[in-house]
Amino acid sequence: MENDSKNNNKEGWKHKLHEILYEADTPKGKIFNIALFIVIITSIILVMLESIQEIDKEYHDFLNISEWIITILFTIEYIARIIAVKKPLKYIFSFYGIIDLLSTIPKYLSFFLVGSHSLVALRALRLMRIFRILKLARFIGESTNLVRAFKLSRAKISVFILFVFILCVILGTIMYLVESGQNSGFTSIPRSVYWAIVTLTTVGYGDIAPVSALGQFISSFIMLMGYAIIAVPTGIVSAEVATMSKRSRNTHTNTQACPNCMAIYHNDNAEYCYKCGGRLNDE
Amino acid sequence: MENDSKNNNKEGWKHKLHEILYEADTPKGKIFNIALFIVIITSIILVMLESIQEIDKEYHDFLNISEWIITILFTIEYIARIIAVKKPLKYIFSFYGIIDLLSTIPKYLSFFLVGSHSLVALRALRLMRIFRILKLARFIGESTNLVRAFKLSRAKISVFILFVFILCVILGTIMYLVESGQNSGFTSIPRSVYWAIVTLTTVGYGDIAPVSALGQFISSFIMLMGYAIIAVPTGIVSAEVATMSKRSRNTHTNTQACPNCMAIYHNDNAEYCYKCGGRLNDE
Amino acid sequence: MENDSKNNNKEGWKHKLHEILYEADTPKGKIFNIALFIVIITSIILVMLESIQEIDKEYHDFLNISEWIITILFTIEYIARIIAVKKPLKYIFSFYGIIDLLSTIPKYLSFFLVGSHSLVALRALRLMRIFRILKLARFIGESTNLVRAFKLSRAKISVFILFVFILCVILGTIMYLVESGQNSGFTSIPRSVYWAIVTLTTVGYGDIAPVSALGQFISSFIMLMGYAIIAVPTGIVSAEVATMSKRSRNTHTNTQACPNCMAIYHNDNAEYCYKCGGRLNDE
Amino acid sequence: MENDSKNNNKEGWKHKLHEILYEADTPKGKIFNIALFIVIITSIILVMLESIQEIDKEYHDFLNISEWIITILFTIEYIARIIAVKKPLKYIFSFYGIIDLLSTIPKYLSFFLVGSHSLVALRALRLMRIFRILKLARFIGESTNLVRAFKLSRAKISVFILFVFILCVILGTIMYLVESGQNSGFTSIPRSVYWAIVTLTTVGYGDIAPVSALGQFISSFIMLMGYAIIAVPTGIVSAEVATMSKRSRNTHTNTQACPNCMAIYHNDNAEYCYKCGGRLNDE
Repeated sequence: MENDSKNNNKEGWKHKLHEILYEADTPKGKIFNIALFIVIITSIILVMLESIQEIDKEYHDFLNISEWIITILFTIEYIARIIAVKKPLKYIFSFYGIIDLLSTIPKYLSFFLVGSHSLVALRALRLMRIFRILKLARFIGESTNLVRAFKLSRAKISVFILFVFILCVILGTIMYLVESGQNSGFTSIPRSVYWAIVTLTTVGYGDIAPVSALGQFISSFIMLMGYAIIAVPTGIVSAEVATMSKRSRNTHTNTQACPNCMAIYHNDNAEYCYKCGGRLNDE
Repeated sequence: MENDSKNNNKEGWKHKLHEILYEADTPKGKIFNIALFIVIITSIILVMLESIQEIDKEYHDFLNISEWIITILFTIEYIARIIAVKKPLKYIFSFYGIIDLLSTIPKYLSFFLVGSHSLVALRALRLMRIFRILKLARFIGESTNLVRAFKLSRAKISVFILFVFILCVILGTIMYLVESGQNSGFTSIPRSVYWAIVTLTTVGYGDIAPVSALGQFISSFIMLMGYAIIAVPTGIVSAEVATMSKRSRNTHTNTQACPNCMAIYHNDNAEYCYKCGGRLNDE
Repeated sequence: MENDSKNNNKEGWKHKLHEILYEADTPKGKIFNIALFIVIITSIILVMLESIQEIDKEYHDFLNISEWIITILFTIEYIARIIAVKKPLKYIFSFYGIIDLLSTIPKYLSFFLVGSHSLVALRALRLMRIFRILKLARFIGESTNLVRAFKLSRAKISVFILFVFILCVILGTIMYLVESGQNSGFTSIPRSVYWAIVTLTTVGYGDIAPVSALGQFISSFIMLMGYAIIAVPTGIVSAEVATMSKRSRNTHTNTQACPNCMAIYHNDNAEYCYKCGGRLNDE
Repeated sequence: MENDSKNNNKEGWKHKLHEILYEADTPKGKIFNIALFIVIITSIILVMLESIQEIDKEYHDFLNISEWIITILFTIEYIARIIAVKKPLKYIFSFYGIIDLLSTIPKYLSFFLVGSHSLVALRALRLMRIFRILKLARFIGESTNLVRAFKLSRAKISVFILFVFILCVILGTIMYLVESGQNSGFTSIPRSVYWAIVTLTTVGYGDIAPVSALGQFISSFIMLMGYAIIAVPTGIVSAEVATMSKRSRNTHTNTQACPNCMAIYHNDNAEYCYKCGGRLNDE
């Protein structure tokens, strides 16, 4: 029986750790997650500062020590996460598990492998945790809606992106044939395809630009086309969001509940309950 | 009693001043606001002209004197505003109060601090008063609608901008790792993040552009992605505006209710109820 | 009586000319308008070719003679238009009248004023006649819809453009203060405002680009903001087009006519005529 | 009779070949089409690699032999397609027939004509076959929807593109007059029109950019205008997609009609009619 209580104790301890590390809804979890978020932000700012040579020269030691402290904190967190979870392997090979490992390990590797240190920059990926921490905020609703709108139009947008990509391959090839003798940056087909993407998406760096009259003529067509087809994905998502927000609005608008069976979501002009056939109250 | 009438007089004088300075609806307020607007525009044109070196050389004295005149006008207006209002501190620390001060003080500071003069340019912020003056015009309806549409989608757009920013940090970091050895402008992570924002928003200056094949390949992905995700905020605002304009249309179109069966949503030119056939009231 | 018939004859002749020159619906008017369109296109191509120095050198005489022929044709057309119309002054000072004059006169002016010749390029403005000729085609419906959608959202879009412009003035001024010492193209406030417009509209030439860290940081904000606010005009027009196309669809959808009073445009679920109160037929 | 069976046999053989080559729904056709797709992708990658000079130098022989193999495969496929189809001429002069020929012939031509080899790049056009192979995938629905949305708004978008093009001709001409003396790239009207298109579509290479104050002022107007009018095509497609997806949703959602009062548009989980309270049929 003592053993049992010990077991219980141990389980309770694990359970508590799990609550802190994985659940952002409990008070302790809230505090932990916010603290974690601050540490992540700090670590990213450190990595950014380190990448600027002038700053790195001046404050190399300070940056190095700070990074070691954060690396150790991340290591402790990583181990704690493995302990707290019931199926450690599932966590280790999960999306967040791999990111957590990737953001911890490069600093240790820098002992053995010179140059591996710059991989610390992968720590930026941990920023994605913010979307889990966002669960805390009232933004979660909006965030979910955005994600849902995107998911609903994912298939349509994939087809669209595929279409645009093929178009860019064809257009890039044509421009390579037209401009290849002009010393204007269209040195190979892949580069021309890169140019076609830069142009069609209206980014337009200008590092590669047509020089010949024919090249500029074809480019003009490509741009006008790009101007017209950018409307397609926008239209798709627009319609999706509109439908979604209308549906969620409908839910809110008609707040009647059947006095008989408590069913909700009645049509606006409903006179009888669609579920039990009882008469609805008049407003 | 004399005292009282004096007080009344004083109050009346203050009230009148308040009416002129703060209320754009009264005839006097209208005139004052339009005059103020012209002075603001003039002062901004002066500041702009002064910033062009060739013009400054030629007409330095004229510009300087004009600016002093406007500064004194602004000072008088600022003091009058403090006097006219019931709670001066509230005005002083309000948004417009701070802007009004900031657009007056730099010229005086230029006596003591050399170089502080260029802060006169902050006067451009006073242009925002135009939106208060716009109350005069029929544009106010449209303006309010725009602002409302923006406010309604603010939460969604904030989440979106946050998401885009995190994406840019991650993509910038990846591009820094890929392009850092290429002498192509990706000299630090912050610069790479700056590049990612320039690219994803399809601005594309071209001051920093990928040179390596892998860098251009990843960039192509980023651009196509940016092309697809620009659709999201557009879709959100689109849906919001559509709902809003539909609602306002419904409200305005026809508010008649059938006196017989209470059915609503009649056509504008309806004379009989479409539901029960009873005669509708004439307006 | 002879006089009268002469008058009639003259009137008839004028009427015929009017029909040919101004009405694109009659067979003769159709032919004339298409011929005119071809001449306009030809003249624009000639002006374009002339502006290319290499071509101008080679074929100067041919281009010059061709232009004289077209100028004489345009002159005849211009005089004929004045004769054919009942109120010549109204035509002369109308939008198209001024364009017609502007596209004829520079060639004659080139006798007296050297350099005035290049104004022949204004002939491009005559291209706008295409929208009158388009009346011929079935595109007119679409064209009208587009114009109507634009007109409906004109007020909203004007406010929006005004807002963007003021924003650009403020942002340009701030960037001028930040970047003015950096030798990066922000040499004056007007140039900085120009840069702000180039950036916010996502054009991004790159002829002026921030160099300092703070400048790039602020630019990033401007770009993300521009990314978000581009959604606003799109949303407005979107909603407008959607409403318009729905209304025109509604008209088509419910094709019921009251058997009593022949009123149309009934609601979809109407059971009684909204005009005379008579019962509608069941489908 | 032997002859007949022979004929039948021959016909059957032809029919089988047709099934494999042209029908992507049958199992054999599926396998063939996927294999063909892989060969096309391979050939395009080979052409791309060949266009990169460094790679071409190193692996010229390998690339050349691989291309010959693929050319022979394509030739066999082309001949088989001619044999399999009932009306060979119709195939030969069809869109895909011409592309198939164009992607086979340049390699043979390179024997006789030096330089004609680079036309092998036209093989990229064969990528368009992917849209036929896509029939296999579940993406077909989305793809059809996209194409339909585009077709429905084709007339509107054509008018829009025409309008933008004429606008660019006029704006380009004006900018040529303004900037022609400035040594800023506006060397001829066609180049200025090219610049206007680059600017209005917000691509903004920066290879040509206004230098004079007036030029930059006009450009600013053009950009703001471009910012506003990009909303038009988006709005059109948006509305089209919204209408389309709503209609398809309505059809799919619920087609039940109340057996009692014939009311439609019931909720998906409705068991009783919302109008008369009668029980709905179970599906």
